[in-house]
Amino acid sequence: MTVQPSRDDRTIPPALPVFDRVAILGLGLIGGSVARAARKHVLANAIVGYDRDAGVGERVRQIGFVDRVADTARDAVSGADCVVLAIPVGACAPAIVEIADSLMPGAVLTDVGSVKGCVVRDVGPHVPPGVHFIPGHPIAGTEFSGPDAGFAELFDGRYCVLTPPGAADPAALARLTAFWEGVGSTVEVMSADHHDRVLAITSHLPHLIAYTIVGTAAELEEDIKQEVIRFSASGFRDFTRIAASDPVMWRDVFLNNKEATLEIIQRFTEDLTALQKAIRRGDGARLQDWFIKTRSIRRSIIEAKQA
Amino acid sequence: MTVQPSRDDRTIPPALPVFDRVAILGLGLIGGSVARAARKHVLANAIVGYDRDAGVGERVRQIGFVDRVADTARDAVSGADCVVLAIPVGACAPAIVEIADSLMPGAVLTDVGSVKGCVVRDVGPHVPPGVHFIPGHPIAGTEFSGPDAGFAELFDGRYCVLTPPGAADPAALARLTAFWEGVGSTVEVMSADHHDRVLAITSHLPHLIAYTIVGTAAELEEDIKQEVIRFSASGFRDFTRIAASDPVMWRDVFLNNKEATLEIIQRFTEDLTALQKAIRRGDGARLQDWFIKTRSIRRSIIEAKQA
Repeated sequence: MTVQPSRDDRTIPPALPVFDRVAILGLGLIGGSVARAARKHVLANAIVGYDRDAGVGERVRQIGFVDRVADTARDAVSGADCVVLAIPVGACAPAIVEIADSLMPGAVLTDVGSVKGCVVRDVGPHVPPGVHFIPGHPIAGTEFSGPDAGFAELFDGRYCVLTPPGAADPAALARLTAFWEGVGSTVEVMSADHHDRVLAITSHLPHLIAYTIVGTAAELEEDIKQEVIRFSASGFRDFTRIAASDPVMWRDVFLNNKEATLEIIQRFTEDLTALQKAIRRGDGARLQDWFIKTRSIRRSIIEAKQA
Repeated sequence: MTVQPSRDDRTIPPALPVFDRVAILGLGLIGGSVARAARKHVLANAIVGYDRDAGVGERVRQIGFVDRVADTARDAVSGADCVVLAIPVGACAPAIVEIADSLMPGAVLTDVGSVKGCVVRDVGPHVPPGVHFIPGHPIAGTEFSGPDAGFAELFDGRYCVLTPPGAADPAALARLTAFWEGVGSTVEVMSADHHDRVLAITSHLPHLIAYTIVGTAAELEEDIKQEVIRFSASGFRDFTRIAASDPVMWRDVFLNNKEATLEIIQRFTEDLTALQKAIRRGDGARLQDWFIKTRSIRRSIIEAKQA
């Protein structure tokens, strides 16, 4: 299901800098990291940023990781040959409506959202003719948020998935691919639907589970809760890191990848129920078989150099 | 519920080395790390090891982290003033039956199991009079197993829980405390029942959840499974690390902490069902409120310096 850009696209890499002016809407962890990485690798002549939170814009002016913080989204994208929506997926539709008239013909429009089907559905219809819309998802992040959280190396050695529509312009796709490869990522091209099903299991379910278990702990009696924090190193701690991720971003992920997420929750629940039953019945053989099986998945990840 | 050893116990630390001869039964990750740490910090004049797997014993002779690998458990414990059971909790009852007659009067007998109630129940009745039985649980580990996996620093900066019976000898408790403090741990004393309830949420449930989700992924269609491995960095990877832990050890944990684990699975399932319903109904406010709540738990862990 995964399609690599053809060899021909890659043998003639676009000249550097890849873009003249990159506009980034949303200056949090991901937007701030895109800006820092693009500057570090000289992938644009100028980087303009905008955040609808004026306090964030002011902070970015202090940090200085963009050349200019614009006062409006329309101003930010004017004259940009690449526009990156680095905002929660639920905010993409209002954003495209706002900026559509200001987009430059020939510009590449992309995003960084964790769900792709909804972005195609909500943003696509508003993209003016002549603007090349190629949704994207860099598989990278941390549990921290905001303009101070980003760093230039966030995408280095990580995958970036692009989900171009069938009619996407090959030159635009090649430029966006060069941009992501320029920040150190490996680009994979696939359909939005396939992306959303894969990420439902690799990312959305793990985050939901982590949020659940940490919330379960938060509702324990106070004396036990203090002990849970004290002895968190025994496994719980890893979940709390995941469950500290940005609440608005994740709210939007679950609202917008509803079907794939609910389907994988259902499978997970069936498996948990089976293990619960094995514990209740004292069925050690079943537990041990299951635990041996999961070890082999870890080995595959180590072999794939993703550990 | 947690009781620190009294200040008086700590103002007169036992002289080093704490023990003359430490016998370690089970030479895997934990037993091998206890041996290496005890040697590094000169906590014993001699360290004798035994493993019922002859191949493991042979490997330990090659690595050389104990002074002697005994051929039988009885031989290993003879003359030892400290005996550490570093085996799955389900193996502790047969072990004590085997070694009981060979234990030296005055010896301290302890273990490192992740469940304490079952060890008190299964081992306690077989401990000869004059032997000081003090169950223990160092809150430390990795996803690796076997004699090559251990290292001397595993317990450094980590908690070690001791669950002495009410009639435990204070001098024996002080010596065992000094031993664990000697390898860098902070010792906490509590009841076995309290330990098992706390660990059910901090450790046993997280491991079960990780085993479940990784097993769910293992049963996906082959093409999706390959993608899951490739894109595991988006959250799934953290679970696979936990789900690579020793299968026999974890089988025994769930079989032996059944009630506390089943009770916390029940709470978790109720919470997951509520979030599932919120996703199905598109209730963004409920999701966001939950995700904000879990962030505060992470902050508490960071403040407690357990992150």
